[in-house]
Amino acid sequence: MTNARYNLDEPVAAIATALAPAALGIVRASGKNCIEKIAEIFSRPKALKEAGGNSIVYGWILDKNTKSEGENAEKIDEVLISVFRAPKSFTGEDMCEISCHGGVSVVNAVFETLVKNGFRQAEKGEFTFRAYINGKSDLTKAEAVREIIDSKTSDSRSHAAGRLSGSLFEEIDSIKTLVTDTLAAIEVDIEYPEDEETIADSFDPKMLENARERLCELASSWKSEKIYQDGAKIVLAGKTNAGKSSLFNALLKEDRSIVSDIEGTTRDWIESWVSFDGIPARLFDTAGLRKTDDIIEAKGVELTEDLASNADLVLYLVDSSKGVLDDDKKFLEKNKNIPVIVVFNKMDLAGENEKSFEEFLAYEGIKDSVKISAKKGIGIGELTSLVKKTILNDSTVKSEKIGLGSERQKKSVEQALERVEHALEIAKDETYGLDAVVQDLEDSLDSLGEVTGEVTPDDVLGSIFSHFCVGK
Amino acid sequence: MTNARYNLDEPVAAIATALAPAALGIVRASGKNCIEKIAEIFSRPKALKEAGGNSIVYGWILDKNTKSEGENAEKIDEVLISVFRAPKSFTGEDMCEISCHGGVSVVNAVFETLVKNGFRQAEKGEFTFRAYINGKSDLTKAEAVREIIDSKTSDSRSHAAGRLSGSLFEEIDSIKTLVTDTLAAIEVDIEYPEDEETIADSFDPKMLENARERLCELASSWKSEKIYQDGAKIVLAGKTNAGKSSLFNALLKEDRSIVSDIEGTTRDWIESWVSFDGIPARLFDTAGLRKTDDIIEAKGVELTEDLASNADLVLYLVDSSKGVLDDDKKFLEKNKNIPVIVVFNKMDLAGENEKSFEEFLAYEGIKDSVKISAKKGIGIGELTSLVKKTILNDSTVKSEKIGLGSERQKKSVEQALERVEHALEIAKDETYGLDAVVQDLEDSLDSLGEVTGEVTPDDVLGSIFSHFCVGK
Repeated sequence: MTNARYNLDEPVAAIATALAPAALGIVRASGKNCIEKIAEIFSRPKALKEAGGNSIVYGWILDKNTKSEGENAEKIDEVLISVFRAPKSFTGEDMCEISCHGGVSVVNAVFETLVKNGFRQAEKGEFTFRAYINGKSDLTKAEAVREIIDSKTSDSRSHAAGRLSGSLFEEIDSIKTLVTDTLAAIEVDIEYPEDEETIADSFDPKMLENARERLCELASSWKSEKIYQDGAKIVLAGKTNAGKSSLFNALLKEDRSIVSDIEGTTRDWIESWVSFDGIPARLFDTAGLRKTDDIIEAKGVELTEDLASNADLVLYLVDSSKGVLDDDKKFLEKNKNIPVIVVFNKMDLAGENEKSFEEFLAYEGIKDSVKISAKKGIGIGELTSLVKKTILNDSTVKSEKIGLGSERQKKSVEQALERVEHALEIAKDETYGLDAVVQDLEDSLDSLGEVTGEVTPDDVLGSIFSHFCVGK
Repeated sequence: MTNARYNLDEPVAAIATALAPAALGIVRASGKNCIEKIAEIFSRPKALKEAGGNSIVYGWILDKNTKSEGENAEKIDEVLISVFRAPKSFTGEDMCEISCHGGVSVVNAVFETLVKNGFRQAEKGEFTFRAYINGKSDLTKAEAVREIIDSKTSDSRSHAAGRLSGSLFEEIDSIKTLVTDTLAAIEVDIEYPEDEETIADSFDPKMLENARERLCELASSWKSEKIYQDGAKIVLAGKTNAGKSSLFNALLKEDRSIVSDIEGTTRDWIESWVSFDGIPARLFDTAGLRKTDDIIEAKGVELTEDLASNADLVLYLVDSSKGVLDDDKKFLEKNKNIPVIVVFNKMDLAGENEKSFEEFLAYEGIKDSVKISAKKGIGIGELTSLVKKTILNDSTVKSEKIGLGSERQKKSVEQALERVEHALEIAKDETYGLDAVVQDLEDSLDSLGEVTGEVTPDDVLGSIFSHFCVGK
C-alpha cells in the first residue's frame, strides 16, 4: 500500500472493530469531505456539519437509496458519531468514527451505506499510512500500532506501548544527534584545516563510539522483542504416560493471560498459546495421538521429532516413577542440537529413582532441568521461569522499554551500525581522508532515517502497511 | 438482572466490542463518579474531569498500581475517551467510552485497569437495564437493542431498527389510548347514569373493535418476526447424487448476506446460515456422510429424517435425470406431516422424465415445487423466493415495520387482546354491568404496560436483560 498505488484524495471507510456480535461496533471514515458525505446519510445533517472537532453527535444512519424522493429513508441504525477535524485527528484528515450497535449485520449495513455514498473501502493499514504521510506518526509508532493489536501477552503489549509512546523514536533521534554532531565537527575540519595533522588526530571518536554501543544494543534487542511479538515455539516430548497431556493442561490452566487458541486444527497434534511469565509461546503436544497401538506410538515419536526439529525449545518429560529409560536417552541423544529442558514429572512418585537423575543429566550434558508434578501442580512456576530464562538466554536488552519492533527496523539499524563501525575503523587509518568518514556517517543517517520513516522507499512502505488489519 | 440484585450505585465497566484482533476496541463505563474514577488512571486527569458532555479527550490509560510513588506509571494504551454527562447518555448516567487499540491483550488490560480502580464488571445487559431504569428507553426499545445486535440478515436488522426507533412503542401507545378513551366514556356513564338504558346501548364498541383488530395483527406478527430473529430450520433431503451438496453450496454462494457460520460442528451433518431473500435460515445437509457404503447411506437417510422431523421446511431433491424413484415416494409418504418443497434438480438432464412430474406431485398432494439446476445455477432465485413465501405463508404482518420483538411481548399482547375480546363480548350481554367491562379494560391496560415496561415485575426484567451481551 503506497501513495503511488492509492488515491489519498478519496475518502475511505472501514469496519474497525472485530466482526462478531457485540454491544458496539465502529465504522471509521477519513478523508476529504468525509464529514459532509456522512451528513448526507445522517438524520441530523446540520448538527453533524456544524459539529466541532472532538465532539459527538447523536442520530440515525439512513439508507437514502432505498426510497424514492419524498419518502422517508430507511433507518439503518441509531448511532453516535465522533467528529474529528483536520489536522487534529489520527490520520490528520477530517474523520468520523461511527459507533453503532455491534451486530454483524448492522455493522455491515452501516459500512455498506458509506460505500454506496462514495467512500472507498480502506486498504489494510491505510488509516495509519495516512497518519504517517500527514506527519502524525513516524514509522516506529506506526509499526507499534500493529504490534499492540497483535500482542499476545501483557508483556508483549507493554513493549509495544513503549514504542508507541515514542521510546524507540527518541532513542534513534538521540543516536542521530551523536552522528550529526560528529559530522558537523568533521566538516568544520574539512572547511578550515588549520594544520597538517592526521585524521586520527583531528577526529574525536567518543560520540561515535557511544552511537555504536547504542546501535549494538538496539540490534541485539530484536531477538527477544521478536519472541515477545511472534511467540516462541515450544514442543512437549516424552514417552507415553510421562504426563505430557497433564503438563499441557497444567500450563494452560496456570496461564491466566492466554489470549487466543489457534483455530480448529485438524492436524495430528494440538497447540495452544501459553504465556511463560509474559513470554508468549505456541505450545505443541502430540498427546492426542497416544493409543496403546505400537504403530500409532511410533508415529507419535516421529511427529514429535518433526515438530521439535524447528522448535525454540523442547520440554522433555521423564516419568520419575519409572526413572530414566533407554527411550528417553535415545530421544535426547538423537536430538542433541535442539535446546531442551528435561522435566522430571511425577516427582512425588520418584522414590529411589531420583538418585540417578544428576548423573544422567551430567552424562547427557544437559544443564537445564526441573522437577515437577503436573497432576499436583507442583513446580509449574519454576518450570515457567526456567522457560523464560532459557528462551531469552543471550538477549542483551538494556531496558525493557527500548527495543526494536520489527525485522525491517533491525535491518536498518544494522546497516547504520555497520557504517558507524566502518567510520570508526577508517578514522584510525591514515590512508583514508575525512571525506570517507563523512560518506559513512551520511549513509548511517540515511539508514536511521529509514527506521523512523524520514527516508523510506515506497515499496518498503507498502510492505509495512500491508501487515496491518483493515480499519487501522 | 434486576435492580434488587445489583447495586446501581456502583460504577460498572465492560468490554463492549468483540474480543478479537481488530483496529479498535471499546471499553465502556457508566455510573456514579465514573469520569472522576477514570481520571485517576488517565494521563490528563484535569482535561477529562473538565470535559463537557459529548466531547472526546485524548490521552493514555495508566496502570498506577505497577509503580511505587514518584515513579511514572506504566502506560497501558493510547486512547480516546468519549465523555457523556448525565442525563445525556445512553444509560442516563455519567459515562465514558474508552476507544483503545483493538488487540485482545490491550483491550483486556484497559478493562482490568478499570476493575482494579473500583469499577464492577457490568452484568449482561446492565447498561441497557440502567437506561430503562433511568427512563431513557422503554422495554420494546431495550429488546430491540438485543435484536439488532443478533440480527442475521439485513431484513432482520431492518425489523429491529423499526422497533428501536419506537414504531412498536407508538403502536402500543396508540392502542392504549383507544382503551383509555373507552374506559373514560364508560366511567362517565357509571358516574352519571342519565337513564335506564342497557349496557349495550350506552357502550360504543367502535374504538375497542379497532383496538382488538390492531392487537390481533400485532399478535399474529410474531410468527414471522420470530423467524426473522431466530431463523427457520431448513433441511436438505433426497437420495445420494440428487445434488444436495451442490444445492447447499449454490445457496451459500448465492447468498451475499450470510453473517456467520455455525461453529465447528463435529456432528454428522453440516449446517450453515443462509439468507432466503432476507429470511435467515439454518440450512442442514447430511451430504458429508455420503459414501458408496450401504450402511452409511442408510444412516444418512435416518439422520435426514431425524433432522426433518422438527424442521420448518424440507427441501426434497429429486434427480430429474433419473426421474421420480420409489425411494423418493417412500420418503415423502413417510414424512407427510412435514412442510416440503420438491426440488427437481438437474432439470437440464430431465428429458422425457419431466412429463411424469406433475402427476407425481398431484398424487402426493404436494403443491410447492420448483425446477432447478444447482450445478448450473438455474432456478436458485425462484427456489429462494418460494422458500420465503412458504416460510411466511400464513403470517399477516400489516406493515413490515410494526411487529413484535419477543415472545414476552407476544404473551402480554395476547393477554391484552383476550381481555379486550372479553369486554366486547360481555358488553353485548345484558346480564353484566359496566363494572365488568371496566375490569377487563384495566387488565388489558396492565398487560399493554408490561409490553413497554411501565408495569413489569422484577423477575421478568431479570429474564429480559440476561439475554443481552455484556457491554450492552
